[in-house]
Amino acid sequence: MRLATLRPDHPGDAQRAVVVTAERVLDCGRLLGASTSASMLELARSPSLLQGLRVAAGLCEASRNATIGSLDEVTLAAPIPDPGKVIAIGLNYIDHAAESGAHVPTEPLVFAKFSSAIIGPGAPITWDLAVTDAVDYEAELAVIIGRLARNVNPARALDHVFGYTCLNDVSARDLQFGDGQWVRGKSLDTFCPMGPWIVTADEIADPQTLGIECIVAGDTLQRATTADMYFGVADLIARLSAAFTLEPGDVIATGTPPGVGWFREPRRLLRHGDEVVVAIDAIGELHNPVVIADGR
Amino acid sequence: MRLATLRPDHPGDAQRAVVVTAERVLDCGRLLGASTSASMLELARSPSLLQGLRVAAGLCEASRNATIGSLDEVTLAAPIPDPGKVIAIGLNYIDHAAESGAHVPTEPLVFAKFSSAIIGPGAPITWDLAVTDAVDYEAELAVIIGRLARNVNPARALDHVFGYTCLNDVSARDLQFGDGQWVRGKSLDTFCPMGPWIVTADEIADPQTLGIECIVAGDTLQRATTADMYFGVADLIARLSAAFTLEPGDVIATGTPPGVGWFREPRRLLRHGDEVVVAIDAIGELHNPVVIADGR
Repeated sequence: MRLATLRPDHPGDAQRAVVVTAERVLDCGRLLGASTSASMLELARSPSLLQGLRVAAGLCEASRNATIGSLDEVTLAAPIPDPGKVIAIGLNYIDHAAESGAHVPTEPLVFAKFSSAIIGPGAPITWDLAVTDAVDYEAELAVIIGRLARNVNPARALDHVFGYTCLNDVSARDLQFGDGQWVRGKSLDTFCPMGPWIVTADEIADPQTLGIECIVAGDTLQRATTADMYFGVADLIARLSAAFTLEPGDVIATGTPPGVGWFREPRRLLRHGDEVVVAIDAIGELHNPVVIADGR
Repeated sequence: MRLATLRPDHPGDAQRAVVVTAERVLDCGRLLGASTSASMLELARSPSLLQGLRVAAGLCEASRNATIGSLDEVTLAAPIPDPGKVIAIGLNYIDHAAESGAHVPTEPLVFAKFSSAIIGPGAPITWDLAVTDAVDYEAELAVIIGRLARNVNPARALDHVFGYTCLNDVSARDLQFGDGQWVRGKSLDTFCPMGPWIVTADEIADPQTLGIECIVAGDTLQRATTADMYFGVADLIARLSAAFTLEPGDVIATGTPPGVGWFREPRRLLRHGDEVVVAIDAIGELHNPVVIADGR
């Protein structure tokens, strides 16, 4: 099942989660027979709600009553607009560690993206040229936690996954490497595009078999498979959950494959007018334009 | 005004913010004449609610009706249990940068503590000895954001402050320095004690005049003044808000003065049975015991 969040008409409006089928967009609240909308966090927290959605979306009448329109008639926000935390993993594809001149860590290298950086599909990636002039793309598989995880065994770790989506770990390289600590350069407003939707975990039996690409202005600049991750999703969940509790709605950005712009010869950083696409098998494509205020 | 959050009777219960006076603890929802409790985030977002609280807390009948009990009859949680982000600043007291052998940064050095690490006053700081065996204290002044801040001028930056509290930036030094990125070692569960309450900004005209101490098992191991910050609160808000939006409820941990355990001769790391106190003038004292499961 593909679950998305509609962009609210007004800031502060209740979040409205939807099921995206091949033809239609269905309101989750109405599918569940509720009088109000449902948020993605509510769905992530409740396997029974999710099961209710699956049943109702398969029923003709329920899905007809819940239909909002077709996908091109709605505007999506990030599927989970306000997770409790975005846990980002560095250097998790061996060849990316090599291109960075870094050693592969013996434990997942954890940093954070602030959730204020999250934007949805189609929303512009933008920055102030007085703050940074070296902005790069990073295609990543994002894992959304469903069931709370604390000290979980790798063999059961995938049971804690709600679903998967595409994430672009946009990075101001000058700030990232200048600061040493990566959080600021990775957390500028708009630097965490996510979407277009969450594919629920039941549809992705093995998250280590997915092709992943980043396409910038039509050029495919990253192309890899999640099989090349150093720490796979189950291993990440197990190891992270030994340090801190993973809560429903938390996002794990699992690291980026080789091919980022900063380490290319010649460098290829993002610029005004670029369209950046993160494409992952079995999930879909996350498109975001780059818009710089003064048009440089 | 001193504002705190009661520890809920059951996980998932609505948060209940209270006013703490010299004699009594007053329910904010009842003071405001509401039928439900109020959360600290709601108060942080609304200057008019705060003004209403001030008026009602000064009225005999309203405050009598809202009285829950005395401070020793209630248990406090962290004053803001689930901020959107905890922005932590490294090396922000010159002598601490020196003891760390680090250069003072030219911009605030930003890292993150995950909000899942937050605990309240009296709650135990704890860890798994298989994960870390080098846990340190860091007394810090925490700033709670009230009004949304984006690209604010330093001269107006304090207008965006809701209030101040004490924070202990508990740090697993082996993970912090082993990883290079500090987020994991700073975000273990229980590693972000906060409280005991928020003192509203109107009561602290100049946040750069406060004595700050850390007392471990009765020994005062950090003693400094916030005048020694390299980037003061107004400057921090201005510079951070150039990078990302500061939202109501966000917490800025403003860095720690010299005297942390890791750099002492001999080292003084936290151990089972310690009581750690962060004391800041005009705010109060945050007490937390250290409890290690196997009693080492």
